[in-house]
Amino acid sequence: MHAVTNELGKKIAAAEMIELSFGKETHSTAGNQNLHVIELDTEAGKTYTFYKYFVVFTENDNVPSVMEAAVKAATDAKNAGYEKCVAAHNAQWAKKWEYCDVKIDGDDEAQQALRYSIFELLIVAPVNGSANSIPARALSGQVYKGAIFWDTEMFMFPFFLYTYPEKAVELMRYRIKTLDGARRKAKTESVGFDGAFYAWESQDDGDDACTYFNIGDPNTGRDLRTHFRDKQVHISGDVAIAMWEYFKLTGDDSLLLEGGAEVILECARFYFSYAYFQKNKNRYEILDVIGPDEYHERVNNNAFTNMVTKATFEIANATVAYLKERHPAALAELVKKINIEKELPSFVEAEKLLYVPQPNEDGVIEQFDAYFKLKDTSIKELKAKMIHPNEYLGAGQGLAVPTKVIKQADVVMMLNMFKDRYSKEIKKANWEYYEPRTEHGSSLSACAYAMVATEFGNLDFAYDYFMRTAKIDIEAKYKVYVGTIFMGGSHPAANGGAWMTAVFGFGGVQSTAKHVSINPRLYKKWNSLQFNMIYKGDRFKVTISQDKVEVIADASNKTSHTFIISGQSLTAAPGKTLVHEVGAKNLA
Amino acid sequence: MHAVTNELGKKIAAAEMIELSFGKETHSTAGNQNLHVIELDTEAGKTYTFYKYFVVFTENDNVPSVMEAAVKAATDAKNAGYEKCVAAHNAQWAKKWEYCDVKIDGDDEAQQALRYSIFELLIVAPVNGSANSIPARALSGQVYKGAIFWDTEMFMFPFFLYTYPEKAVELMRYRIKTLDGARRKAKTESVGFDGAFYAWESQDDGDDACTYFNIGDPNTGRDLRTHFRDKQVHISGDVAIAMWEYFKLTGDDSLLLEGGAEVILECARFYFSYAYFQKNKNRYEILDVIGPDEYHERVNNNAFTNMVTKATFEIANATVAYLKERHPAALAELVKKINIEKELPSFVEAEKLLYVPQPNEDGVIEQFDAYFKLKDTSIKELKAKMIHPNEYLGAGQGLAVPTKVIKQADVVMMLNMFKDRYSKEIKKANWEYYEPRTEHGSSLSACAYAMVATEFGNLDFAYDYFMRTAKIDIEAKYKVYVGTIFMGGSHPAANGGAWMTAVFGFGGVQSTAKHVSINPRLYKKWNSLQFNMIYKGDRFKVTISQDKVEVIADASNKTSHTFIISGQSLTAAPGKTLVHEVGAKNLA
Repeated sequence: MHAVTNELGKKIAAAEMIELSFGKETHSTAGNQNLHVIELDTEAGKTYTFYKYFVVFTENDNVPSVMEAAVKAATDAKNAGYEKCVAAHNAQWAKKWEYCDVKIDGDDEAQQALRYSIFELLIVAPVNGSANSIPARALSGQVYKGAIFWDTEMFMFPFFLYTYPEKAVELMRYRIKTLDGARRKAKTESVGFDGAFYAWESQDDGDDACTYFNIGDPNTGRDLRTHFRDKQVHISGDVAIAMWEYFKLTGDDSLLLEGGAEVILECARFYFSYAYFQKNKNRYEILDVIGPDEYHERVNNNAFTNMVTKATFEIANATVAYLKERHPAALAELVKKINIEKELPSFVEAEKLLYVPQPNEDGVIEQFDAYFKLKDTSIKELKAKMIHPNEYLGAGQGLAVPTKVIKQADVVMMLNMFKDRYSKEIKKANWEYYEPRTEHGSSLSACAYAMVATEFGNLDFAYDYFMRTAKIDIEAKYKVYVGTIFMGGSHPAANGGAWMTAVFGFGGVQSTAKHVSINPRLYKKWNSLQFNMIYKGDRFKVTISQDKVEVIADASNKTSHTFIISGQSLTAAPGKTLVHEVGAKNLA
Repeated sequence: MHAVTNELGKKIAAAEMIELSFGKETHSTAGNQNLHVIELDTEAGKTYTFYKYFVVFTENDNVPSVMEAAVKAATDAKNAGYEKCVAAHNAQWAKKWEYCDVKIDGDDEAQQALRYSIFELLIVAPVNGSANSIPARALSGQVYKGAIFWDTEMFMFPFFLYTYPEKAVELMRYRIKTLDGARRKAKTESVGFDGAFYAWESQDDGDDACTYFNIGDPNTGRDLRTHFRDKQVHISGDVAIAMWEYFKLTGDDSLLLEGGAEVILECARFYFSYAYFQKNKNRYEILDVIGPDEYHERVNNNAFTNMVTKATFEIANATVAYLKERHPAALAELVKKINIEKELPSFVEAEKLLYVPQPNEDGVIEQFDAYFKLKDTSIKELKAKMIHPNEYLGAGQGLAVPTKVIKQADVVMMLNMFKDRYSKEIKKANWEYYEPRTEHGSSLSACAYAMVATEFGNLDFAYDYFMRTAKIDIEAKYKVYVGTIFMGGSHPAANGGAWMTAVFGFGGVQSTAKHVSINPRLYKKWNSLQFNMIYKGDRFKVTISQDKVEVIADASNKTSHTFIISGQSLTAAPGKTLVHEVGAKNLA
């Protein structure tokens, strides 16, 4: 069978071969059906087994003929036979689990939920060399159109970066591939901007699948004007941050040279053209945005967005400095190609003078300008005012808009992303301020709160929210309507969030370009937590139990690495095992 | 009777005296009633006349006792008798009409409507020395709370400035009196600003009576979050412009010295703190505002608002220059009092570098950033989508928000206010672009379109919209509901607009600090238009007929003035009459 897709006109072919050791196979093509008909006389008590080899090829697979490729692959499979196919399949999966498995000893429910989460991520990991990414609902559900969101960089990418960098690099290559789309979007959105404004719902070519009216109002039947598409500018910084993380944690600068640096500079360029300077305050501000909390649209100086912007300028400046030292010719070529030389000093100034909201006297960071002036109301009170059970709480006139009720982690998400910049006290103060005001109306919220909770010792909460995140697609108790829109399906970002909560949260793993640190805060129910990780291309198996941390450096590792475990700096030489006894005081 | 008002606790007293030449008067106080009872035996065919003298005093009248003052005034009136009272009343009115009358020969309907408009303005003109202003619904209707809007400066003030400056000065003194309220508002609105942000609905103390939810949604019964209060920043510039007009056209700088200059500088200071600098574009921008078209909230670089802001900087700089030359000590004292010396160079830079949207290749000025990208729909199509006949078309999710449909004159209002800065061609191009997209959902809209129409010769339209404006309170066909809010009552701003359309529009009167120019474009139905005006404290009677313009300078005038009539410069010496024959080519 072959077909051509509606929108992009891409060829697709499916081939099927049946291996039959009994009866008789005929084909029937009636109407638009194409059927295998298997006729047999059956004997009571006997089992009849047949094998079906099914293959799909699309134009994206870069074969001369999708039809021929599909038929050939199906034929080859049939010729190889079922046992060989299954063995090859199992070998693939064994490798994947060897890279990616996390073992939780003492908590089967958590173990199952986390493994299921990892499984969901693995089944949608891009094919090597495809420069594809992972949509927000993976391959389930049509509402998100198979489009790529910030979910990928912020929630799925870390899992692949730590366990399966050859998949992580594809996610980044997708952003390089779609850079022109991001440039188009920057030019055409609102008054037009410079640089790269990545799409909120990014399609194959980087164009935005998000509409300006993407939520329906069940009270009136009208489509609501939302600003997801035009104001959620943090997406570009999310991409730049992931690009830089890849470089920092793999040590591999080839991605930077193959378009990554260009992406980073174009993102900084976008922000500089988007930013405004406030003369009386002598600072740059980022105005009129939506942060992660989508209930409050068109806000000024959203702490999350401003910090992501500042980080983008830092990364752009660091990229220039790195290339200048290590690849001056490549830098010169890039600077010329995108004609950015005159703008580079602006990025240095913006890194210095960009305003990022700071904690107030209570340690709380205001989510955006004048957030503290909004009405303080409980989520329960708010929901009691709903006319329709699915009505959207944001979008200009939604019930949450004039209140402090937020959809999902925003300041807390920022504290989690930039955890090395804030003290435990600041994290606790903000967590305690914002958590009761958070609806957790996004599947991205619970894991951010869980991870920050592990940092200041609220492990019961962290465990509860970890389990909610890890079980999201097993229990399927999540919200499935936003306004009139059905938004069910699988949740790969939550799956990534579950992995992050286990490894970064309870495991306390955090990496810089120089070392890996592990500050474990294992949940009381867990005897041990074991996971695999790759750092600078070398492999490690980490086992954290209640009284010690063991790090096994793979014998195949190329070099030694520094691990700082609960504050103690240790060297993990290839083939060696580090053991660090963890005193009770190190446990939160 | 006496009472104390609810909110401000102000004393108020009413006294009544009855003059009876028959029967018997007794008093009855039953419950909360206080009645005069008049008993008489009546004879068939005979007329019985009695007189009632009624007086109200309030604490604002600055008398030692409102009760005593009211009783005394009523007693004095009774002692003087009806005939004397009526004679005094008529003398007052004769003076008012002598100052203010406009005669339209050949069109009784227009004459009646315009005189009624003038009458409405005169009955609410502030008492001399009161520093009071005129509310948007005068003393009728409760929805606007007796509050002062931009209506006063932009639509009523010109009438008083040209005919009755001792009333115009009170309107300005009200803004001086409420400067502290405007400062409070600047400090407390949103993130807080410097200077003076005048209230959208200004109360006695300058505090804002406008709420953040001032329109109800009939579809849901909820109050809509609107930004009239926090984003309609042009109000401060409207005040500064009127303040400067007063100085320019009266030549009297005492108002500047008695607080007017302080108001102007504080308005400029507000705008500078509100403005943002865009580094790539090397310009200041005014972001996140509502212009006169209230259907589009939170827009950037609204042409009207930016031009008003630019004018405010110009006026602030001109004020400083004027005071430096003529009243250096007063300037020094003021600069010290409000500690503004360091900021003055900013105003000079802002005057130069503030962005004001310019005409495109078709001569059309974009109402605000990306307005041209909005959906082009007809008002009819738009209204067909309404669920409830009174639903509001703005406020975030209103039907007009994603479209080019505007509530009222915005760019065209700007072209009318700054008519000397734009050519006839630009006015025509914008008028023709915006008029079909204008709902005229505000009583302030029609006169702006009418005035601009007179400038490029669409006199039939101008006449039609002049009549709509002048007859608004006679016909009472206007919209009386906005959302769930009843907003009926009288329309003093439209009354002022009718006068402006007659004198500035058809009469073509425009004044600068140096001269008065008259470029008549009399409507074909009218034999002549005659009006009185004061310029630099001297009085003139102007008669425009189809073939000539006659200006009679009052014999009591102090000096000569330049009148430029259809391009010809003439000197109006005291007691002299200028006659300028108008050729057909001068008529539009």
